Amino acid sequence: MQVVALSCGNGGKEAQDFIHKVFMPHLQGFLTAEGEDAGVFEARGALALSTDSFVVDPPIFKGGDIGKLCVCGSANDVAMQGAHPEYLSVGFILEEGLEVALLQEILASMQAQLRLGGLKLLSLDTKVVPKGCVDQIFINTTALGPVLYPHLSAKNLKEGQVIIVSGAIGTHGAVLFSQRAEIQLDTPLVSDCQQLYPLLEPVFQSGCKLHALRDATRGGLASVLHEWAQSSGVGIEVEEDCIPILEGVRGVCEILGLEPFMLANEGVCVLCVEAKDARQVCALLQEGGAKKACVIGEVVAGRGVTLKTPWGSKRPLDILEGELLPRIC
Amino acid sequence: MQVVALSCGNGGKEAQDFIHKVFMPHLQGFLTAEGEDAGVFEARGALALSTDSFVVDPPIFKGGDIGKLCVCGSANDVAMQGAHPEYLSVGFILEEGLEVALLQEILASMQAQLRLGGLKLLSLDTKVVPKGCVDQIFINTTALGPVLYPHLSAKNLKEGQVIIVSGAIGTHGAVLFSQRAEIQLDTPLVSDCQQLYPLLEPVFQSGCKLHALRDATRGGLASVLHEWAQSSGVGIEVEEDCIPILEGVRGVCEILGLEPFMLANEGVCVLCVEAKDARQVCALLQEGGAKKACVIGEVVAGRGVTLKTPWGSKRPLDILEGELLPRIC
Repeated sequence: MQVVALSCGNGGKEAQDFIHKVFMPHLQGFLTAEGEDAGVFEARGALALSTDSFVVDPPIFKGGDIGKLCVCGSANDVAMQGAHPEYLSVGFILEEGLEVALLQEILASMQAQLRLGGLKLLSLDTKVVPKGCVDQIFINTTALGPVLYPHLSAKNLKEGQVIIVSGAIGTHGAVLFSQRAEIQLDTPLVSDCQQLYPLLEPVFQSGCKLHALRDATRGGLASVLHEWAQSSGVGIEVEEDCIPILEGVRGVCEILGLEPFMLANEGVCVLCVEAKDARQVCALLQEGGAKKACVIGEVVAGRGVTLKTPWGSKRPLDILEGELLPRIC
Repeated sequence: MQVVALSCGNGGKEAQDFIHKVFMPHLQGFLTAEGEDAGVFEARGALALSTDSFVVDPPIFKGGDIGKLCVCGSANDVAMQGAHPEYLSVGFILEEGLEVALLQEILASMQAQLRLGGLKLLSLDTKVVPKGCVDQIFINTTALGPVLYPHLSAKNLKEGQVIIVSGAIGTHGAVLFSQRAEIQLDTPLVSDCQQLYPLLEPVFQSGCKLHALRDATRGGLASVLHEWAQSSGVGIEVEEDCIPILEGVRGVCEILGLEPFMLANEGVCVLCVEAKDARQVCALLQEGGAKKACVIGEVVAGRGVTLKTPWGSKRPLDILEGELLPRIC
């Protein structure tokens, strides 16, 4: 089979063949319940669950693809509630005529991430729609797992707490911008797309006090800080000089007139921690491989998000308005 | 706001406004964790989870719409594992330019089904893609809940067990066929789309022995019976005369040359039960409102699925090949 046919989604013979020949070689080892409508698992205590649809364009980009992105993205959303992502469900929406080779590349990439994260698949769904009804491939993933570090919330921020980022910001967004057909910038950048739980587990277990945790996806760092400031009724002040940004990302931003604070990330999180624990949290993140993890600011009295420039002046950090670039995740 | 703008999915200010103005009036009361990346809930014991993407065309049809369909469809898949659907996650993929009034109608319909099923929303995601990248609206739902009646499986069938259907078959498929733009048949039929758990709860609690349970969606009754026969390595024999089919569905099938056994259902399930309990299971289903619930056949030695015609002859019941009609759910 070279391309996906409409009959691959008919719920009959071709659909069974399609699943067995194309999906199973990559996903079988991770499925908990082949051939049933629902997967069953044993649970005890608090579980966190998050759903996300992935519509990224192009489906394969530098440093990742929609398969890697959907596993990382949903696992990260669960990790952001202080939980260990253990299970996943996946729903594919495929366009009639999609190259099977492209689908297989995406499935291989999912397989690698499922293995890396020790994730199991509870449920798998495949729909095929007529040509023109969807652009190539969309994937929805739902991840869940036990809460290890409870009570993280956007409403927890209080004056004096410290804001940390786990890595250089804006890279995923800059890669997508530069790779999009209408732009086609040549840059050595690769997406930051990665699973964050392995990085965070030592922090959860350290005894350090975390108040809020969020991965800075659509809307970027600016969006997380604004949501936190608004939800908690506080101000946040960040130092522009402290925020790690790769040279290549600065370059893309200059050429295209973008703010790196608003660009999407897929493997960078923002942490709000107790001031006395900030140094230890940064050290743990760095030991885990997040070499650029650092303090970027603090929670202050007042409202809104303020950026302190390298010249000592202050300006409001704007939140994204309009749409920078659709389909970045 | 009259139509959905691309910026409604930007993760920034417009996205927040869009969620609060359009989604929250309908869904707020069901959300467990507004403003967080993941919902948290307490669990104990075995849970069943199922995911499904809904791409039905048209999004509003006689007897339902994509909003009703996605809640019923996912809740039903969980119920088919003997579980009580309690939680749901929902991911919307919206086309730029979608009428907000259409979206609101769909959300109101979801709200009614969430209330009816006593379901809570753990996680909500919204993506907006440029015009032409998706056809109006696709929804992915993932449902989960505690298993009350464990060990139902397509692999459980043994000779002598009895096959029951909960209602007249093929109605949803016939409605979609007759309403599709290229066909436009005028019929009084309405989709059978409904939540099945309330109907099944008394059966789960009755002490009757169920072996397998499946809702007959894509591929219809024929697909369920074939999957069961194959998974269990048995034969299944059904009596054509016993299978309930509405007159209107027979009419659509005659005009269009279709087999009702292959048409999709969205509120009809197939049960495989111990022979001695068959009468009681039918009675419980009928008391619950499924007036047409009845025995249609039995598990036999051999392989494959056989249809006994009203004239006493036998023929193989074919499984769907090719694609009857794309996007029926």
